[in-house]
Amino acid sequence: MAQVLRQCVVTFVRLGSTKVAHSTPGIRLNNHRLYLKLLGGGVLCQFSLFSWKGSRKPDVDSSDSWMSEPITSLDELKQNGDDMKCKMEAMIMRIQSEFVHAVEKEELEEGGKKFLVDRWLREQGGGGITCVLQDGTVFEKAGVNISVVSGILPPNAVQQMRARGKKMKGANLKFFAAGISSVVHPRNPHIPTVHFNYRYFEVENDDGEKHWWFGGGTDLTPYYLEEKDVVHFHKTLKKACDGHGKQLYPKYKKWCDDYFRVPHRGESRGVGGIFFDDVDEPSQDKCFEFVTDCAESVVPSYLPLVQKHKKDGVSYPEREWQLLRRGRYVEFNLIYDRGTKFGLYTPGARYESILMSLPLTARWEYKHSPPEGSREAQLTEVLKNPREWV
Amino acid sequence: MAQVLRQCVVTFVRLGSTKVAHSTPGIRLNNHRLYLKLLGGGVLCQFSLFSWKGSRKPDVDSSDSWMSEPITSLDELKQNGDDMKCKMEAMIMRIQSEFVHAVEKEELEEGGKKFLVDRWLREQGGGGITCVLQDGTVFEKAGVNISVVSGILPPNAVQQMRARGKKMKGANLKFFAAGISSVVHPRNPHIPTVHFNYRYFEVENDDGEKHWWFGGGTDLTPYYLEEKDVVHFHKTLKKACDGHGKQLYPKYKKWCDDYFRVPHRGESRGVGGIFFDDVDEPSQDKCFEFVTDCAESVVPSYLPLVQKHKKDGVSYPEREWQLLRRGRYVEFNLIYDRGTKFGLYTPGARYESILMSLPLTARWEYKHSPPEGSREAQLTEVLKNPREWV
Repeated sequence: MAQVLRQCVVTFVRLGSTKVAHSTPGIRLNNHRLYLKLLGGGVLCQFSLFSWKGSRKPDVDSSDSWMSEPITSLDELKQNGDDMKCKMEAMIMRIQSEFVHAVEKEELEEGGKKFLVDRWLREQGGGGITCVLQDGTVFEKAGVNISVVSGILPPNAVQQMRARGKKMKGANLKFFAAGISSVVHPRNPHIPTVHFNYRYFEVENDDGEKHWWFGGGTDLTPYYLEEKDVVHFHKTLKKACDGHGKQLYPKYKKWCDDYFRVPHRGESRGVGGIFFDDVDEPSQDKCFEFVTDCAESVVPSYLPLVQKHKKDGVSYPEREWQLLRRGRYVEFNLIYDRGTKFGLYTPGARYESILMSLPLTARWEYKHSPPEGSREAQLTEVLKNPREWV
Repeated sequence: MAQVLRQCVVTFVRLGSTKVAHSTPGIRLNNHRLYLKLLGGGVLCQFSLFSWKGSRKPDVDSSDSWMSEPITSLDELKQNGDDMKCKMEAMIMRIQSEFVHAVEKEELEEGGKKFLVDRWLREQGGGGITCVLQDGTVFEKAGVNISVVSGILPPNAVQQMRARGKKMKGANLKFFAAGISSVVHPRNPHIPTVHFNYRYFEVENDDGEKHWWFGGGTDLTPYYLEEKDVVHFHKTLKKACDGHGKQLYPKYKKWCDDYFRVPHRGESRGVGGIFFDDVDEPSQDKCFEFVTDCAESVVPSYLPLVQKHKKDGVSYPEREWQLLRRGRYVEFNLIYDRGTKFGLYTPGARYESILMSLPLTARWEYKHSPPEGSREAQLTEVLKNPREWV
């Protein structure tokens, strides 16, 4: 899942191919206070999502736990604490660290692997930090990617970046994009796959007029339906939305169901969540608060499901079913996902970061159909007919 | 791999969704004389490809060995032996049977499985016969599909069906398409995957002007490079082409290299073969002879490789590499293949026949790179820089 950010990153690199200027193993500190605070009350915890509001402006306080040095220097981030570009970069650095540490904790508790941290820079400016955990004990593949890029774009490329874009004027537009994107494929089929992506864009017309907007979403792809888990997941996202308007969750829940539809199979990729784009109201700060709340709701919405199911027993048919569903996940990502498609069509794109979302293993069988009344059929029914969960 | 045929089948079904009117286990006779004749001299045999020329006109002599009753009734095929629609249907029925039996023979010799035969009809006319062997001993997944469809199409849909299409006139064009499409994924990584597709189209303008053309190709995707095998494969295709003009093989070999390029990875799907579209010269009969020769060259180009390698020893890393390469195969089919894309975008498409081309299992690893000097690196080198093989 990449959505608009990847698209934007790669339409951007059309102007010159991405080169990994250098790659470092990254700064790995053991400061877990942030995500421990977030994980808080254990399984299905529903603590306040708004505890960070007071410290959001600089948000570099957490920098000692970031996965690597940021793309913009820490000094610059500190000095420009009011600039949304810097605020966004600091926020996604923090969220990346919190999410990676939360996932890694579950993995290490079972004697598994640590994330690999790949920091890459573009020669033309900007770069990203790709964190990957592959072939672990709890997680088969988990990727948490941030990217911060800027440059010049032709207007039709900019136009592609917006789901319902406003007209941009000028031949070559100044452009900035920062975002976090993640997919986690656990090994146990009783733990769902999760995906989230939060992103911020700025585009400046030839006449100096500036546009900015936010986009993002979090969605869940279970292999077996555990209604309680899905309700918890949606409730947590709804809570993050509700603080910014009661209308948001229903609107973005529906957008998510629509976006992740796989038309040729007449089913959804998963049980949804929230999805939005072109968010630029009521103010930049309010939008940022909203996106931050959504991003902060990933850990409490998802990690309890990992904790609850990571030791569940698994049968061979359950694993087979998981692999078949992963095949469907690949179908959506490679055929329909806007960002992946535009990304990969672009020469010089950093395809390893784009394809990080694919599972380690997937399977396709001719005319596979789960037996009537089975738990597999029960999931299929929900994917064909999306439900309200809250 | 579906190319234009699928596109055509599915743009066609836009006018009404495909319904499987009935599905039969198909007629399975043990008359193996045809493919035995083709298999002839054993490993790497290079016998004449033109032995069928004398009997091409009716071509229903082989009907007792077809996988199922044809889509058009046998009587109609017999009575219209001069109509290219009937000649093409009879030819692809024969090729399907010969290829299925040749593949199945290799499988059954090792105590494996038989092909499943799925005959499906469209309520609006036409249909197809899908033959699938899944999770076998020698073959992990093999699909051999024919379809014969006709109806009415808007002109821009017709336009999409041609790689370099001539202008069609009129709002609703009468349309016919018949083709065979196949992908074989063997279990042993020392046997390459093969794909072929041969197709015939007719379109009639509002003013009664008729267009017809042929398209097709055969290409090889090895996991380990065996130069002798690749040379044999290309030589066999070249021989089929050469009888119709020495210029054809080099032209269609290059077209194949271009078509199966995976731009985001800067590598080809495999070691190529031949690929062509819009073939309508010098005459319908000559084109048909050419396409028939190409289709008949599949068994002698590929089956010797199966026979040669099916008992080769396989290590765990070799299997892992095969699965990674299968991931690349999925990437090409779902992201770039014209037919698959347009097919799956169309509501009501028979997606099971379209996705039959996907392997049973595929794998994606972050930044996998084979060690320098390894056999895996040797293959990668050839995929990055396509060679001349003949």
